[in-house]
Amino acid sequence: MVVNYDRLFTSRSKSLKSSEIRELLKLTQSAGFISLAGGLPNPQAFPVDVIHECIEKVFKTNIHNALQYGTTEGLPLLRDVLAKRMKEKKGIDCELHDILITNGAQQALSFIAYNFLEQGDTYITSAPTYLGALQAFHAYQGNCECIPMNDEGIDIDSLRRNLKRLHRTGITPKFLYAVATFQNPSGESISLEHRKELLEIASEYDFLIIEDDPYGELVFEGKPIPPIKSLDTKGRVVYIGTFSKVLAPGFRLAWVVASEEIINKFALTKQSSDLCSNMFVQYVAYEYVKGGYLDKQIQHIKTLYHHKRDVMIKALKEYFPKEAKWNVPGGGMFLWVTLPKNINTRLMFKRALAKKVAYVVGDAFYPDSSNYNSMRLNFSYSEDEVILEGIKRLADVIKEEMTTSYYDKDYYVNGV
Amino acid sequence: MVVNYDRLFTSRSKSLKSSEIRELLKLTQSAGFISLAGGLPNPQAFPVDVIHECIEKVFKTNIHNALQYGTTEGLPLLRDVLAKRMKEKKGIDCELHDILITNGAQQALSFIAYNFLEQGDTYITSAPTYLGALQAFHAYQGNCECIPMNDEGIDIDSLRRNLKRLHRTGITPKFLYAVATFQNPSGESISLEHRKELLEIASEYDFLIIEDDPYGELVFEGKPIPPIKSLDTKGRVVYIGTFSKVLAPGFRLAWVVASEEIINKFALTKQSSDLCSNMFVQYVAYEYVKGGYLDKQIQHIKTLYHHKRDVMIKALKEYFPKEAKWNVPGGGMFLWVTLPKNINTRLMFKRALAKKVAYVVGDAFYPDSSNYNSMRLNFSYSEDEVILEGIKRLADVIKEEMTTSYYDKDYYVNGV
Repeated sequence: MVVNYDRLFTSRSKSLKSSEIRELLKLTQSAGFISLAGGLPNPQAFPVDVIHECIEKVFKTNIHNALQYGTTEGLPLLRDVLAKRMKEKKGIDCELHDILITNGAQQALSFIAYNFLEQGDTYITSAPTYLGALQAFHAYQGNCECIPMNDEGIDIDSLRRNLKRLHRTGITPKFLYAVATFQNPSGESISLEHRKELLEIASEYDFLIIEDDPYGELVFEGKPIPPIKSLDTKGRVVYIGTFSKVLAPGFRLAWVVASEEIINKFALTKQSSDLCSNMFVQYVAYEYVKGGYLDKQIQHIKTLYHHKRDVMIKALKEYFPKEAKWNVPGGGMFLWVTLPKNINTRLMFKRALAKKVAYVVGDAFYPDSSNYNSMRLNFSYSEDEVILEGIKRLADVIKEEMTTSYYDKDYYVNGV
Repeated sequence: MVVNYDRLFTSRSKSLKSSEIRELLKLTQSAGFISLAGGLPNPQAFPVDVIHECIEKVFKTNIHNALQYGTTEGLPLLRDVLAKRMKEKKGIDCELHDILITNGAQQALSFIAYNFLEQGDTYITSAPTYLGALQAFHAYQGNCECIPMNDEGIDIDSLRRNLKRLHRTGITPKFLYAVATFQNPSGESISLEHRKELLEIASEYDFLIIEDDPYGELVFEGKPIPPIKSLDTKGRVVYIGTFSKVLAPGFRLAWVVASEEIINKFALTKQSSDLCSNMFVQYVAYEYVKGGYLDKQIQHIKTLYHHKRDVMIKALKEYFPKEAKWNVPGGGMFLWVTLPKNINTRLMFKRALAKKVAYVVGDAFYPDSSNYNSMRLNFSYSEDEVILEGIKRLADVIKEEMTTSYYDKDYYVNGV
């Protein structure tokens, strides 16, 4: 008998969909293509020699433990140095047992969905927001409520209005998800005042805040804004940190800081999901943090990415039509370009393919598809000359598109 | 406001429970304790120098890719050498694209539950069966139907009877789960005839077979039995292989071989779960397989574990009371002891704690708790002298328990 997959797959399994964006980007893998679309750290930002040194240390000191099964919550040595660092650098008051190690931040997002989203449960996110989070929450059939962004991050008034509206229909969201600092995709941060307000609102309506913080260390300019978690005294914030942008994404190492109740549930979730995280790279990461290499490396990455942002901004000024607008993020890996309202960046993508340059179309980051004339550009990955050439090509693409589309120069969508 | 976890956690999250066995075993961590309970490979079985060599190769050839994000399905180089090896050594006809890399076999089990088990869906397993699988399936609120084992593995007559009974009530199971070779916990294997029958029955009722094969390479005696997957021409079997017993469990590397439909769903599941597996150790594993080290290492591990099994069997013969029965598995890491029917190994555990020796109580592996007088012993992990001393202590524990419990020497439960 032929296998009847229709009977076998669960409804959640059936609702999984391949990311359209990922399919689009597959077209950009050919030679000569310039992709400003990816979200990859620069390979120059990998501390190869230091990693080699840390590995040698692990072979000399702990190799048998590093090759064996480990505790589900993660290597205590690593959780301990992370707790100390979170306290010292981030003002997050935590100890070893408040931390659980995950396979990258994505696993933390997946645990959040598993533990907090029944089918149809509502969660809140800004629009735009991080694609991977949407994917994790969609995998458990959560229902997304989008709040627009403004120049202080999330639009608090809109958030309050929407919460009231939901409340009237008997709905209280389970959590609000935010990349509060140098957001992927917009590069924008939530202001300190808004962070405080978010915490108050979360307490008022009794939902959690999921603070995803992959870029918080990559500050080029200005004073770092304290994480929402550092303002949290009630265990209302689940904080996600990661080694992906400050050591190596290939190691798949991240961590969650949360209340005891949540850490305990996540440990049980991890047990059934994959028993424990890779022990070998946990030991390597421990040597990396303990040896003080992490802090040196963050300096190096900041300098590198600051420079790359400037290269891209300079090229944008030089080549992009004056009708295009962009932000100048004070850190992170991305910036956000808004084009005239009559340009649809998804339709324009075909023209970009022809010119062998790629971006991510802005509407991909809008769960409600409420934006169509923007794009995300990544400045961390490419060589300087490649950024320059990519922006040149993209400028040509936009100019061509502007001459062929209806075009109203006085009217822009607020893209961020 | 205090966080109201009761509102926030999902029903699946609330049903997660800490493993009682794990809690029991935490008591056995103190100095001087001998644990025959764990399921750990022997650290002597870790090819430390070879791993070091493979890592050096990765640094010389592919280090930047090894530190970067990778494809969700896993490193193509690794999947290619695995496909060739599966074909050559196991008779499993597969190619690169039929394989997906996971974080240990546990992640594969979790993906199976995510994709095939709605709340209340039925799956089949033998009793006893592997605890980690029960945990993964329980996490998605699957409903377990237990089939007893006999000397050819699973009791086929009982399976047919139970399927008919279920069918009458409108229930068709989603899959049958089996560690077909040198099962954890019993050390027993399903015969070739029974494997063929299982495939026929699965086709007749249209369910999948999940073949979890961590111990299939560790054959001490006799001819290896072909995997069920090698007999499957319809994509009805999902095969799970792992590096945990033949390289290092700390690397968290396993793989799934399945039909295109299932591999595609698992890739989407993996994307939302953790994006991709650790790239660094995938490159290391690739060098390990490609360099021919894996096959040499398997020989080494087989010799080591064969010897350890013999050490344990010899000690059992010498010290255990004649009323105790055990099997002599032809491979793997575990053997199964059955005690007289009036002994309850869970109650006896207290006495074992006092004598500083640990086993896993047999009923833990029975989802229907239909067995209480058996235990699983691990022979792979401990030093020879430790095995000897552990069995001596355990013999004393059993003898003491026998003198204090009601004891009927003529009556045993069929433990395997």
